[in-house]
Amino acid sequence: MRELEERILSQGRTAPGGVIRVDAFLNHQIDPQLAQMIGQEFARRFASEHVTKVLTIEASGIAFAVFAAQALHVPLVFAKKGRSRSQGQDGLYTADVRSFTRGTEQLISVSRQYLTADDRVLIIDDFLAMGEAVRGLMAIVDQSGARLCGVGIVIEKGFQPGGAELRARGVRLESLVIVDRIGEDGQIVLRKDN
Amino acid sequence: MRELEERILSQGRTAPGGVIRVDAFLNHQIDPQLAQMIGQEFARRFASEHVTKVLTIEASGIAFAVFAAQALHVPLVFAKKGRSRSQGQDGLYTADVRSFTRGTEQLISVSRQYLTADDRVLIIDDFLAMGEAVRGLMAIVDQSGARLCGVGIVIEKGFQPGGAELRARGVRLESLVIVDRIGEDGQIVLRKDN
Repeated sequence: MRELEERILSQGRTAPGGVIRVDAFLNHQIDPQLAQMIGQEFARRFASEHVTKVLTIEASGIAFAVFAAQALHVPLVFAKKGRSRSQGQDGLYTADVRSFTRGTEQLISVSRQYLTADDRVLIIDDFLAMGEAVRGLMAIVDQSGARLCGVGIVIEKGFQPGGAELRARGVRLESLVIVDRIGEDGQIVLRKDN
Repeated sequence: MRELEERILSQGRTAPGGVIRVDAFLNHQIDPQLAQMIGQEFARRFASEHVTKVLTIEASGIAFAVFAAQALHVPLVFAKKGRSRSQGQDGLYTADVRSFTRGTEQLISVSRQYLTADDRVLIIDDFLAMGEAVRGLMAIVDQSGARLCGVGIVIEKGFQPGGAELRARGVRLESLVIVDRIGEDGQIVLRKDN
């Protein structure tokens, strides 16, 4: 996606430890027109998969996932982090997700009502690095008996192993942009043949 | 909004303690077409306010806020809960937000880069009950020196004091649906003259 590549190269910032900051347009401040283009691109790439549910995790995947779900004419389900009393304790699919950036582990959950064995699920998230969040979402899809159609990622960090692991497992992974590496002076280098 | 009222009356559920569950279409599973209609309705109601930023809080307000921002042709900023190392410690507006349903208190933050004294801000959230989240977002708008144009809420719990307090302070509050009370047998009773 050329528009996304251009925005990442012009507005993306980096920090030590392989951190890519796209706060200005993707995951703190969001450009809604760009978010819609991203969602529509996912819908186009998975158009033949007969998706029945889009699944993401709160919070920064929601904006892209809701546009993908709209374009596919299916509901969006977002996994919740932690638990709340109003959500109840029963009837949940759950998985543990480690966050390497935050240094924490969290329980994520989806109500059993909203994923069933009849569903065909497209997982969407903003970033793919170590792959922990996607693995947690895949575990939830597995528990539900639904079929995983694929995974759509806005920015894959190609220098971290999450993407390669998913492809090795035969998962259909569509990353709109792959960051190959962060250069010595901190510039973002994109994979050309993506 | 008639479509929203109909969905709440047909698919909304209640639980003891004034809990209203709209998990099926609003805040766990989301109907994206309904979310777009909600966002467009906020944009219509605040069309004359020259809004420059839509502000919400992660996670369940994002889907409506991004459609409102799209319709208003402005960016969406969402306040983050807690802090992450990759986000950095400096340059944040912060506020404390108590959650009565979760029984916790959380720091919310917005990067100073994305709200300035030149902004005209529309706050969007899914629920208004005690008003804690909106008060936190208003404190952040205040810190930035931006002007608050108003607050758009999908479902206001009319039997809790948040909405009345905001109106008493002169805030322009637009709640698409106000739940007047939960009946003795658990049915949702909507305010008619909203």
